[in-house]
Amino acid sequence: MRPGVEPFTTRTPRVVAARRLQRRRERTETGRFLAEGPQAVREALADGAVVELFATAAAAERYAELIAAAEADGARVSPVTDDALAALAETVQPQGVVAVCSFVDVPLAQALAKQPRLVAVLADIRDPGNAGTVLRTADAAGADAVVFAGSAVDPYNGKCVRASAGSLFHVDVVRADDPLAVVERIRAAGLTVYAADAYGAADLDHVPLAGPTAWLFGSEAHGLPPQLADAADARVRVPIHGRAESLNLAAAAAVCLYSCARAQRMEGTSR
Amino acid sequence: MRPGVEPFTTRTPRVVAARRLQRRRERTETGRFLAEGPQAVREALADGAVVELFATAAAAERYAELIAAAEADGARVSPVTDDALAALAETVQPQGVVAVCSFVDVPLAQALAKQPRLVAVLADIRDPGNAGTVLRTADAAGADAVVFAGSAVDPYNGKCVRASAGSLFHVDVVRADDPLAVVERIRAAGLTVYAADAYGAADLDHVPLAGPTAWLFGSEAHGLPPQLADAADARVRVPIHGRAESLNLAAAAAVCLYSCARAQRMEGTSR
Repeated sequence: MRPGVEPFTTRTPRVVAARRLQRRRERTETGRFLAEGPQAVREALADGAVVELFATAAAAERYAELIAAAEADGARVSPVTDDALAALAETVQPQGVVAVCSFVDVPLAQALAKQPRLVAVLADIRDPGNAGTVLRTADAAGADAVVFAGSAVDPYNGKCVRASAGSLFHVDVVRADDPLAVVERIRAAGLTVYAADAYGAADLDHVPLAGPTAWLFGSEAHGLPPQLADAADARVRVPIHGRAESLNLAAAAAVCLYSCARAQRMEGTSR
Repeated sequence: MRPGVEPFTTRTPRVVAARRLQRRRERTETGRFLAEGPQAVREALADGAVVELFATAAAAERYAELIAAAEADGARVSPVTDDALAALAETVQPQGVVAVCSFVDVPLAQALAKQPRLVAVLADIRDPGNAGTVLRTADAAGADAVVFAGSAVDPYNGKCVRASAGSLFHVDVVRADDPLAVVERIRAAGLTVYAADAYGAADLDHVPLAGPTAWLFGSEAHGLPPQLADAADARVRVPIHGRAESLNLAAAAAVCLYSCARAQRMEGTSR
């Protein structure tokens, strides 16, 4: 950031343009989205996704290494006023940095070509916080790819980006229109496809989990569309041992994905 | 509900008094709290916790079985206007019913006397949504007791009650001031105590889980206080197989609790 440059205000065209990325339509048209806060910006930089980095004077000092990395990477670094930063950010404490990033998703074929062993498919999950949390959990469990399918939330929605805590930049994120086609292609790639279903006939503790596996997760409100659940190799339920009616989506996904992760790593060993 | 009774308004003293239960201080002084929506009310009735049930005319018709159950149980059933119901409820769609309930927590000694095999201790978890979600997950995993310890959120906080999705009424909920004393008493009762810690030395996949176990969970922001984590038999981490920095609290708790649930049920069997 060159010294002496007047910081951009809320009315500076570049700030106005970047702020429009808070809307899905603008993101879709430009192929760009916003990531806020030092953690997300760091992961975006590591992924080579940053196009422009907005930073307040205080943040430029505090996160000098991020500014340097952005400049080294050829990203534009733009100083902004506190007000402009606040306008770009969607959280109360964005810690002074917001980056414009290029979309990072890859085609399904590309993700499958890497022979993934663990995949999560988010089918029609509308809540961005839930979707981002499952993305983060999938990353932690070692998933290779996460597919946002059907009417699932935009993975570049600000809340989803934040809930993913950087995982958007770690795994192969795929966007696909037709969840049924996704299931067919994933199965054709050699993965077993399980539908996570609170009322599934199969118990998670009694299905084979050690092979390459894809999990289908539906919306918390409506579950998976029946046609989609039917397309899976099995409908699998997380067993309810107590009196709770069900688990919430994030908890169920964590249990399913981690059960696979453990089984895959213990394959051939006895406990 | 007797026909012809004028529904209570926002200014009716009983409604005004019940509404005060949205504040912790009032709950603590009266030993009562609010549960809203048909699911929570149903669970509260099953637990014998309902003191008074407020219902709109539409809800009284729609959930006639709840009204009948409340009356059979000796609870007061009070008709309210839509406005009064909205004032009592904290959500936008409370579906017409809000119950005043008596506290349901039990002393730690009483919970331990039942020789629990799976216990969750929430130490200093301040976020009511997180606490309620872990309570729900613990119930699903078959936990016998959930302890709210130290400066943890009030289990009767409206958000916590809602996030628990009825589980508040299913497991032994314990409130305790001193988390260290809780750990000592739980261990004295024969349980192994594990501190869930993202930086723990022990890997969840390599610690004994089949015996009676208590899990300590700390706040998402600060984790467990070091002194408390030290008091556990081991600090256990959920392994991170991918590049995520960590799991969120609800996901980590789900993996820890379900790993125990499975190990306890598979004890003596080979997979």
